[in-house]
Amino acid sequence: MDRLSVEASPGLLPEFLAQRALIGPGRDAIIAGRTRWSFSDLYAASVETAEWLASLGVGPGDRVAALLPNGPGYAAIVHAMARLDATLAPLNTRLTAFELDALLEEVDARVLVYGGACDAIARALGTTTPVVETLRLADDGGDPALPQATNVPLVDLSAVHTIVHTSGTTGRSKGAMLTYGNHFWSAVGSVLNLGLRDDDRWLAVLPFFHVGGLSILMRSVIYGIPVVVHESFDPAAANRAIDEEQVTIVSVVSIMLQRMLDERGLRPYPETFRCALLGGGPAPRGLLEECRRRGVPVVQTYGLTETASQVVTLAPQDAVRELGSAGKPLFPAQVRIEADGGDAAVDQVGEIVVRGPMVTPGYFHRPEATAQALSDGWLHTGDLGYLDADGYLYVVDRRDDLIIRGGENVYPAEVESAILTHPAVAEAGVVGVADARWGQSPLAFVVLRPAMEAGAEEVISFCSERLARYKVPVAVRFVDALPRTAAGKLRRGALRDTTDG
Amino acid sequence: MDRLSVEASPGLLPEFLAQRALIGPGRDAIIAGRTRWSFSDLYAASVETAEWLASLGVGPGDRVAALLPNGPGYAAIVHAMARLDATLAPLNTRLTAFELDALLEEVDARVLVYGGACDAIARALGTTTPVVETLRLADDGGDPALPQATNVPLVDLSAVHTIVHTSGTTGRSKGAMLTYGNHFWSAVGSVLNLGLRDDDRWLAVLPFFHVGGLSILMRSVIYGIPVVVHESFDPAAANRAIDEEQVTIVSVVSIMLQRMLDERGLRPYPETFRCALLGGGPAPRGLLEECRRRGVPVVQTYGLTETASQVVTLAPQDAVRELGSAGKPLFPAQVRIEADGGDAAVDQVGEIVVRGPMVTPGYFHRPEATAQALSDGWLHTGDLGYLDADGYLYVVDRRDDLIIRGGENVYPAEVESAILTHPAVAEAGVVGVADARWGQSPLAFVVLRPAMEAGAEEVISFCSERLARYKVPVAVRFVDALPRTAAGKLRRGALRDTTDG
Repeated sequence: MDRLSVEASPGLLPEFLAQRALIGPGRDAIIAGRTRWSFSDLYAASVETAEWLASLGVGPGDRVAALLPNGPGYAAIVHAMARLDATLAPLNTRLTAFELDALLEEVDARVLVYGGACDAIARALGTTTPVVETLRLADDGGDPALPQATNVPLVDLSAVHTIVHTSGTTGRSKGAMLTYGNHFWSAVGSVLNLGLRDDDRWLAVLPFFHVGGLSILMRSVIYGIPVVVHESFDPAAANRAIDEEQVTIVSVVSIMLQRMLDERGLRPYPETFRCALLGGGPAPRGLLEECRRRGVPVVQTYGLTETASQVVTLAPQDAVRELGSAGKPLFPAQVRIEADGGDAAVDQVGEIVVRGPMVTPGYFHRPEATAQALSDGWLHTGDLGYLDADGYLYVVDRRDDLIIRGGENVYPAEVESAILTHPAVAEAGVVGVADARWGQSPLAFVVLRPAMEAGAEEVISFCSERLARYKVPVAVRFVDALPRTAAGKLRRGALRDTTDG
Repeated sequence: MDRLSVEASPGLLPEFLAQRALIGPGRDAIIAGRTRWSFSDLYAASVETAEWLASLGVGPGDRVAALLPNGPGYAAIVHAMARLDATLAPLNTRLTAFELDALLEEVDARVLVYGGACDAIARALGTTTPVVETLRLADDGGDPALPQATNVPLVDLSAVHTIVHTSGTTGRSKGAMLTYGNHFWSAVGSVLNLGLRDDDRWLAVLPFFHVGGLSILMRSVIYGIPVVVHESFDPAAANRAIDEEQVTIVSVVSIMLQRMLDERGLRPYPETFRCALLGGGPAPRGLLEECRRRGVPVVQTYGLTETASQVVTLAPQDAVRELGSAGKPLFPAQVRIEADGGDAAVDQVGEIVVRGPMVTPGYFHRPEATAQALSDGWLHTGDLGYLDADGYLYVVDRRDDLIIRGGENVYPAEVESAILTHPAVAEAGVVGVADARWGQSPLAFVVLRPAMEAGAEEVISFCSERLARYKVPVAVRFVDALPRTAAGKLRRGALRDTTDG
């Protein structure tokens, strides 16, 4: 007799926001400046937004493109999708009109909704998609009938909620389809690692058009906790939110966390602050050590647009012991390292491959890219890393950023991490340049701290004391700023473009 | 165009215990007296148990019946099932040989495993099923190779993990099939309501052969927290575990919680104790008020074997304000009240009907009972309750226990709750007896507190001051004990059998 099993459940759940508004209507959902919405306010705002979008012709199966800064209205649009059976395509507000026109053509949206400081660029678009300024919502989100126990609709976990374009640190941007299930499982995976407290409040300084910000909006509704929304990242404002708004968790990338620490000086954080969830690439060792020294509760994570955010996260209990590791797979996830066409050995660097119910079913209208990335449910991430003997993941770099020098692998993140420990250095970026003798060589771009000085030779000699000889940059260029994505991730491709190499 | 959706995910997750042993091998899993198993110990014990069961002929699709008291070995058997693709049928250790023989025939088990004090009854069985004493495990569970990132097996969420017989307060017991998905979603629903802390420890005083105890074993592995195991309920030992083992959550039924409070006297509980999860039927008002007065963090819940435990639970934030309510549906669940063939009005009593991914797919080999209970995913619970205007559920009683007196509904739980506020009363049970004039009348069974006295007339007059006239018992019988299930639930059917009525 075969294993006893029954027909699989159809993968339906009560619609997230309606259910949350039924369960805890009065609890805080959104805190943004003086705006403070409960879950019933947010529900009301999402209903009003859905009705408005329907009046613009949006119906089941349509895409809605959004080009606006973080704010309560963004949350209303995100949760209006379930009421329309539509899919949201959040667009990066830093893109050019040319880039946005290309994305709009790709997603074939029924309407582009813009707001805030995006009106100038929205007006400059050449797209045939109707471009509409977003609805102005009442301060309390309006007042429709609240959901009752009997009329919370079901949502199909396999329906596509969002198409999120990869942050595009390399190559052409692709739109990862994220289902309701992807978002839900991501939130479940996170809660089974980070836990959940009555008084949790998650600070959103990452943009909602990236998965790092968007996923906070989903967790807020799934967990029943408020999200404290900042329109953009400001280190002083982020620190103030921790002090004054009792923020307990903040999602950041390295450069943001470093700026928060610099801004704060030596004043300790309050006990209520329990997690700085640090993603967006390998973290500089110096930053992690500074956090440990100062008692900042940093928790490293590894995530991708294609996994609806975190997929591997260090448990808070391991944060100090396993410094530098991105941790273990979240409970519903699996991770492997592929090298030479098979599983890598312990400590052997290879491509990070992940699987689980938070992994995207594919890229929108890009079947070849989908087939290339996904096989048997495993997502090939294009990131390089290794698993140690205890199963902890260490992310070393993007595969595309790898520098191969005379047959030796040089990981830019490692070189940057070394340069960043120099007291005069604020930011560092390393890329490969063509080298007649060695194939490629590392070149460093450095931003100095205000009123600090250091010459190229000093930086190179500093590296020589810390790195194997083949990893030491052959040259250093001093610049005023490094190219970064809206989420703060270093764009090494843009740096490479400046080297003609 | 239809809603954008993709092929549903196949409903696979990493096998729970292997994944937990990979993620947090060294964290505490089981604390039982001097035995203290980490998740890697528990994993090792489950592997050893699976190998032993396989040597007895257990293979995919087989049922394994278990008849033993709470202990670490029980957890090893529960988690061995995934390694065998087999299904566990935990049996109630209080049943007679006659009852057990009938259940064994029904579940058609490959083997019955017994242990502890169950050896006498196991030897008295007439079953043709092989009866085997359970494996004696090493104190640390043995030492097999731990799971690696690459070899955690997947588990199909639609596979049946357990067949749990309903506690049988009324009618013939039925075996509810609980899938891996039922257990997982139950745990997820609970965590999204009660939260999860690093230092959580769940006390198991309910038997593992009931869903109230079994679900603690599943949550322990899914959350990565220890379960503190007591072989049976002892109020002093439970209180000690809260003080000395830093238990944060305990699952109890009313009679257990009352005995814990009585045993403790006025000494307050430590801050670490954050939740007394109170299920097993409507809670007496007096008990809830005593908890409020004494600051005991009681959280009412409504659950069933068929829902893998909780399905409606009061949020801790609402525990004081909504005293007496079982709360709101868990995040993945829905609840309705059916009356007169449709949805009941607000505050109207009817049958409680629930839906969600924690609901059983049906009863083992009982297609008619399954068809009767389940329709379109909705489970008809046979319990009576109502939803108030804010959507809070109030459970009034079992439908089968309802007393109809001259056309008026008398809910035994309400009458018991009133009697229990009498200072001399320790326990109370109310059933209907035939009444020539009114059809039925309430009859009370009362257990007095040690060294306390009260006559039948005093109890009746006490009730008259607190209840409408038609609800007042017509007679009172004083007894030494009330019949209860192993989980501590009152067996009104057994009381009725003693009345000849």
